[in-house]
Amino acid sequence: MADLHLVVDRAAGGVAAQIARELREAVRRGRLAAGVRLPASRELARDLGLSRGVVVEAYEQLVAEGFLISRTGVGTTVAPAASRQAVLPGGLPGGLPGGLSGPQDSAPSPAGPGMTSPAEGREPYHERRSTAPDLGAFPRERWLASMRRTLAALPVEALDYGDPGGVPALREELAAYLGRVRAADVVPDNLVIVGGVAQGLSLTVQALAGRLPQVRARHDLDWFVQRVEYPVPSPGRILLAVEDPAGVRQLPLLRAAGADLVAVPVDDEGIDVGALAETGARAVMLTPAHQYPTGVVLSPRRRAELIEWAVATGAMILEDDYDAEFRFDRDPVGCLQGLAADRVVLVGSVSKSLAPGLRLGWAVAPPRIAGSLRLARGELDMGSPVLEQYVLADFVATGDYDRHLRRMRRQYRARRDALVLALGEHLPEITVRGVSAGLNLFAELPYGWDEASVVARAEECGLAVEPVEPMRHAPGPPALLMGFARLPGHRAGQAVRALARALGTRGEFRFRLETPG
Amino acid sequence: MADLHLVVDRAAGGVAAQIARELREAVRRGRLAAGVRLPASRELARDLGLSRGVVVEAYEQLVAEGFLISRTGVGTTVAPAASRQAVLPGGLPGGLPGGLSGPQDSAPSPAGPGMTSPAEGREPYHERRSTAPDLGAFPRERWLASMRRTLAALPVEALDYGDPGGVPALREELAAYLGRVRAADVVPDNLVIVGGVAQGLSLTVQALAGRLPQVRARHDLDWFVQRVEYPVPSPGRILLAVEDPAGVRQLPLLRAAGADLVAVPVDDEGIDVGALAETGARAVMLTPAHQYPTGVVLSPRRRAELIEWAVATGAMILEDDYDAEFRFDRDPVGCLQGLAADRVVLVGSVSKSLAPGLRLGWAVAPPRIAGSLRLARGELDMGSPVLEQYVLADFVATGDYDRHLRRMRRQYRARRDALVLALGEHLPEITVRGVSAGLNLFAELPYGWDEASVVARAEECGLAVEPVEPMRHAPGPPALLMGFARLPGHRAGQAVRALARALGTRGEFRFRLETPG
Repeated sequence: MADLHLVVDRAAGGVAAQIARELREAVRRGRLAAGVRLPASRELARDLGLSRGVVVEAYEQLVAEGFLISRTGVGTTVAPAASRQAVLPGGLPGGLPGGLSGPQDSAPSPAGPGMTSPAEGREPYHERRSTAPDLGAFPRERWLASMRRTLAALPVEALDYGDPGGVPALREELAAYLGRVRAADVVPDNLVIVGGVAQGLSLTVQALAGRLPQVRARHDLDWFVQRVEYPVPSPGRILLAVEDPAGVRQLPLLRAAGADLVAVPVDDEGIDVGALAETGARAVMLTPAHQYPTGVVLSPRRRAELIEWAVATGAMILEDDYDAEFRFDRDPVGCLQGLAADRVVLVGSVSKSLAPGLRLGWAVAPPRIAGSLRLARGELDMGSPVLEQYVLADFVATGDYDRHLRRMRRQYRARRDALVLALGEHLPEITVRGVSAGLNLFAELPYGWDEASVVARAEECGLAVEPVEPMRHAPGPPALLMGFARLPGHRAGQAVRALARALGTRGEFRFRLETPG
Repeated sequence: MADLHLVVDRAAGGVAAQIARELREAVRRGRLAAGVRLPASRELARDLGLSRGVVVEAYEQLVAEGFLISRTGVGTTVAPAASRQAVLPGGLPGGLPGGLSGPQDSAPSPAGPGMTSPAEGREPYHERRSTAPDLGAFPRERWLASMRRTLAALPVEALDYGDPGGVPALREELAAYLGRVRAADVVPDNLVIVGGVAQGLSLTVQALAGRLPQVRARHDLDWFVQRVEYPVPSPGRILLAVEDPAGVRQLPLLRAAGADLVAVPVDDEGIDVGALAETGARAVMLTPAHQYPTGVVLSPRRRAELIEWAVATGAMILEDDYDAEFRFDRDPVGCLQGLAADRVVLVGSVSKSLAPGLRLGWAVAPPRIAGSLRLARGELDMGSPVLEQYVLADFVATGDYDRHLRRMRRQYRARRDALVLALGEHLPEITVRGVSAGLNLFAELPYGWDEASVVARAEECGLAVEPVEPMRHAPGPPALLMGFARLPGHRAGQAVRALARALGTRGEFRFRLETPG
């Protein structure tokens, strides 16, 4: 039985989260080794003078994240996948002298290459995107205030070419934020700022395919003072597994970056790791926090299997931390990267939390990959614009980012609840799958209903929906992805009622619509 | 003799510029064909009721830009290279239906991959960059005011994914600006916003090397509403000529993008086109407005030869419009792109005019290339952040950009004059070459002086200098590139006097310094 040495500050509140954080660190740093049995929740609660519920909550969080395993009759033990990091003393393997490295990214945007259509007279495309956040809630005043503070305080030299890996102030804020909120295992040197998830994914795949320059020595990163000539990158390719179903809009981007794609089925526990292993893929891209589009969370068992697979085969995991900020029914499950920082590249952005137009994201990666991404940005575009990096750093540091997220979480939760309620009331034939999270829900249609017909009717009724069939490699039951982020609660009932009426009276939803003309 | 139909508005001022603009358009649109003789300046002045000097000024401008040729005994005629565009009715060849195309970029930054060094305790690197603008003069108040106006007025949907080719408002403002100030031949559809000159160059070379997706039909650009799968880009390469001497910091970037480089000598008229033709290069990159580092302006004769070469061989010209905003002794010579919009990609940015940290630039290119750049940005990073694009559009539209440039032009001119004066007084052995322009000057050292020694001494004296030897492919006389943008006039004399003393008393500047240790 482990002696836990937990330090809990009751006055600070969030005691369950404190216990989870302490235990996570203990596992990561090897103080709690694989297989070690933890005290029963009742016992630990008594030792700490806390209620048992608090300890249960902390244990459950870590089981969901894959750090602990809970079995009837055995109790709670440390998961093998989690504790393997303890064998890497002093940080990650492959680190550069001085510890410079790169970020691990967090989450490719399934909304991928959405863009303004050049055609005229069409309704704004984003209205139909089920993945779009509520841009009307963008905190313009607070953002401008951060910009004012930034411009008032910024030293002159900060306006010059920045570090192509991102300005240090933002990398520090984000590393702390991701550690705190996403349980990521990250230091600023391993975090690279990217122009959104699209760029993070593209560059990561290029790095894995051997297309990017590699960091050979520390002074390779010191471009200004010396001429460095890189070997011509090879036109390498890599076999990359993607989830089935998955967002399709980023597939061209991945192919262009050097990925040959193979689809692996997703079930109620997330990606099927057995099937993944059979593909021979050298990397996999997935959305563990809230699978896109099915909405399932990767199960603790699958987390463990996935990391075992990656370690055994030397493969890399690309974790798209898509909409992970928005979990409504409980604390979000920590990211996979926090469990295996040397095998995972975590990609994320503010596209869902603030606005896609900011084009600001991050990639958290093992040192070698992070170094390559940073070099590549130096060769490609010299990094992201600096002013808005400082603004975002200020926004996070002042707590404005957290406040905005809390506000949006409340709003999105209410909107989701209203939509779920309306569906249950007016269209009980439809089954809502997936957890209470994100900006959209996965609505499975009864066998025989025609997806395209329902989508057409739903759009007529003002709902932001997308058909799931185009996202599938293997056939599956008809389903819709329904966006609720821009759908006020009071309009949900009305829109779903109208849809029910349209489907019921016309009776055509069971059949494929004839294309006119 | 041509009938010119010039319309001049005397009340509007800038009459010579008006005449130049009218004549330029007449040549471009084919109303003035190759070889046509223009009226003598005296005659035209009489017809227009203007002083002869005004007409002479307009003619001289167009001769410098390559639109007109002036020969003793023959008079002023329309240049062949200029009028060939008249054979392309209705715009550029290869245009898409609806006229969508891409921009032609203007000018790769010789300061290229400058970046913050990760090492500690070193003086800020940018202080030593001779190409750096005076960032202390960045108009923070005005920029914040533009941001405030932008955030107050922006429609909600503008915060979503933008057009990866750039927001329309900015493309329109910049197209008009470049037409007016740089005599570029550009419509917004041919202008693509890029993350600075580095990205503009990298993507253009990738396009020329056949590495980017190609626009096959208009709907290829309409990503959101349909799935488009691109062919895997080939790992193509292209033989690209660069000037000798040239900025070296962008060379790794060009190579990584698919360029095999070949150096072509620069003399007092700019690049040697005869030597260029012998290389068999399929493209050339150059800095015609103010060659980096020598400071010469590409002569009218060379402009004509260069375009003849490009047309005859089907080669492309990459025009780096580096620091072209800052010509002090006269109006800047119009860009090469204005003379041959179908053969030139013009790349430029606000890195010298505002700040490198903004990472905002443009590429003006023939339709096919512009379309590829736009597609590529959609695949790579989904375009530049939108907010600062709107801010720059506002900045240009309100005239704040012009006012800032006028102010900086006055300041830089005074600083250059002070440095030239100080060199003449204290170091008459040094010869200043190149025109009165830009942010730095080319200082040729007497035969036998050791460049590295002088650089070391100059840095000790607080001067921002760079050795020219590393920029040369073929050997040349020792020289320095001396930055004056951050050197106040009153400090120039003092610094140069100190340098003269250091060189004179130690006597070692003629020899290579021993490396200590």
